[in-house]
Parts: sequence; structure tokens; C-alpha cells
Amino acid sequence: MANLTNNDVFLAFSTYATIVILKMMFMAPLTAYFRITRKAFSNWEDTAMGKKEPEERKKMLQTNPDVERVRRCHQNDIENIIPFVVIGLLYAFTGPDLSTALLHFRVFVGSRFIHTVSYVLALPQPSRGLSWVVGMITTFSMAYRVLTTALLL
Amino acid sequence: MANLTNNDVFLAFSTYATIVILKMMFMAPLTAYFRITRKAFSNWEDTAMGKKEPEERKKMLQTNPDVERVRRCHQNDIENIIPFVVIGLLYAFTGPDLSTALLHFRVFVGSRFIHTVSYVLALPQPSRGLSWVVGMITTFSMAYRVLTTALLL
Amino acid sequence: MANLTNNDVFLAFSTYATIVILKMMFMAPLTAYFRITRKAFSNWEDTAMGKKEPEERKKMLQTNPDVERVRRCHQNDIENIIPFVVIGLLYAFTGPDLSTALLHFRVFVGSRFIHTVSYVLALPQPSRGLSWVVGMITTFSMAYRVLTTALLL
Repeated sequence: MANLTNNDVFLAFSTYATIVILKMMFMAPLTAYFRITRKAFSNWEDTAMGKKEPEERKKMLQTNPDVERVRRCHQNDIENIIPFVVIGLLYAFTGPDLSTALLHFRVFVGSRFIHTVSYVLALPQPSRGLSWVVGMITTFSMAYRVLTTALLL
Repeated sequence: MANLTNNDVFLAFSTYATIVILKMMFMAPLTAYFRITRKAFSNWEDTAMGKKEPEERKKMLQTNPDVERVRRCHQNDIENIIPFVVIGLLYAFTGPDLSTALLHFRVFVGSRFIHTVSYVLALPQPSRGLSWVVGMITTFSMAYRVLTTALLL
Repeated sequence: MANLTNNDVFLAFSTYATIVILKMMFMAPLTAYFRITRKAFSNWEDTAMGKKEPEERKKMLQTNPDVERVRRCHQNDIENIIPFVVIGLLYAFTGPDLSTALLHFRVFVGSRFIHTVSYVLALPQPSRGLSWVVGMITTFSMAYRVLTTALLL
């Protein structure tokens, strides 16, 4: 245990993994915000707040472009941040230099914040595409080190 | 290695993380159950069981409210349980008291079971909303300890 | 730290977890490939490549069966590979025999490659269903060992 908490790369990983997971979790309240302000819900029981008339409630069972956009951004986070966390953890155990590890963690987490802003604000491409690619390459780079260091098939 | 398996917080984390991941995996057979009983599939090749006439099969390529409800519940599990597992693992390495750690793990796992029951049975709000918020707060509490203990930017 | 990198089961887990996560990440460029070749996008800003006339771009905001199939395959990966990674990591800490652990990791990773091929090529059932079940059983088997070894409620 002391091994891990005395290890700077593991501490850095813990910090950046927690930050980027919290960013991912933030998409949920953002979705809720858009659902409430746009009156666009998926579940009948969610439409009971305030309005009580069945016709009013039925209208609220709709899809909304802003809600769907945030949900796609959330899904993209799941598809990219979770691989980063898994491979980043294994990478931290391969004993990389702290500066190299920090570079990977900072570039990835930075790219995902830019990705979220690009997606939610619908910035023109290639802002979102580039930030997604940068995150992918960072994870691939760590995966390469894991496989070349730990390969046991 | 012995460090980890002699560590009670890590053992407790392993237990609760496994239980709540198994609960999440259970959503897949539940989806299959509703797909089969409601005859609502997404893939043409899945409609070949029993019925063989193309018109009958085409009708089975439909969405069904019960199937979609279980799928949304599954997706919510992914969005909440995976952050818990990641942050909970890092939290276990920060050396919390066993009783404090157990409190976090039990509250989170309990909240997710209540969330699933509330969602699948479509219980009136705020049952589902509250159980979701309780799980989020538990994860935030562990993330706070990780960041205050391990912060290395 | 040395404990972990001297541990063969952990090295084997690192190898197979990285390979299967990379396989999952590959679904994203595959989705992009189908989106571009089928001209089926979800975001207005993604339709600006090449064509500039608004009517042409509006037509590209469509769903396409091939894109949706790859996306369902990606989602199924998330629902199955992430539980494997979490439970596999905890399983590696329970001190299983290397040969038993390798069997679990190889069967799971093999089943997911077969699952992807079955899904993307729309092979007749039960090819996809069986490969999915085999992966689930492998994860359950590891979860059983984690719970019987590490149980601390």
C-alpha cells in the first residue's frame, strides 16, 4: 500500500483520472438541466414535476436536439475516458518517468475538456474531431508502453 | 500483492465493486428477456428464432417502451457505477478507516439497487432521482478524499 | 510496485486487458468510416466536409443501418469489456494459478473478437449470442473467485 502512495506516477494518475471522471459525471446534471429547461423527458414519471394534466405531460415525452447533443458528448466521454483510465492505471505500473507520465495525463485530460466545450457549444469542425484524435493518440501511446513492457500472452 | 489482500479496505472494495458490477451485468439478460417477450429486436438476424416468414420478422424490428426503459437503466448504471469503481479503487489506496470506507461502499451499492428497482418498475419520482443523487454524492465524497490526499498536478 | 510487475498474473491481465480495450476503441474509427461512406451524421457541424449547400448537408443528418449496427456493437463492448476489466483486475489480486488466469483472459478476449466479427458482418445467430454468453460466463467465473476469496461485507 505504501508502495503505491509513495509512487509519484500513481499519485499523478489518481489526480488526473479523478478530475476527468468528475468531468464525465458532470455531463449527467448538464443533461438534466437541458431536459428540464427544454421540457424533454424519456420517462413518464419524470414529467410529473409542476404540470399535472396528462396532455401537457405527454408533450414532454419528446427528444430535443440540445439534450441529444449533451447525451452524445456523455457517450463519447464513456467511450474514451474509460479506456484512458484502464490503460493509464496499467501504464502507471510500468514505471514511466514522472515527466513523461504527466505529459500523457495532462494532454489527455486537456483534450477531453476541449472536446466537451467543442461538442456542447457545437463549435465548427475540426475542433471536436482534433481533440478526440489527440485523446485517442495519448491512450494509444500508453497502451504501446504497457504492451512492450508487460507483454505476457 | 500480499499488501493488497491483507488490506481490509481493498477487500471490502473488491466485494462491493464486484456485487455492483454483477448488478449492472444483470441488466443485459433483463433486456434480452423483454426483447423476447415483447418481440422487439434491433437486428434482423435476431428475429429468426421460431418465426421464419419475412413479414413476421420485419414486424419484430421495432422499439418497445419496456425494452427502452431497461436499456436506459443499464446506461445510467454505466454512467454511475463505472465512475464509482474507478474512484473507489483510488480511494481504497488513500488509506481511509474501514468503517468510513464501508459506509461509502454500502450506501453507493444500496442506492444503485434502489435506483434499478425504481427505474424498472417506473416508481413515482423522486424515488429514482433521489437514489441517483445519493450515489453521485457518495462518489463525490470519495473523489474529494482522493484529490485532497493524492493531489499531484 | 515491484510486487505487481513481478507478478505474472498481473502482467497477463495487463496484456489482455489492453488488447481488448484497444479492440473496443477500434469501434470508434469504424463508426467514423461508416458515417463518412454512408453520409450519415448526428451533428450539423460534421456535415461541412466537402459539401457546403445547406440542403445537401441536411440530408446527411440521417441514421443509417450500418452505422447503427457498429454503434450497437460498440455499446455491447462497453457493457461487457468494462466489467471484465474491473473484475479481472480484482481477480488478478486473488492469486489464481497463471494457467487458470490465462485461460479466463484468453477465452474472454477471443469471445469478444468473435462477437465483433459476428455483429459487424451480421452473421446468423447463434454466433453472436454464443460469443456474448461465453464472455459473460468467463466474467462470472472470475467474479465468483473474487467473492469467495475477498468477501468482506
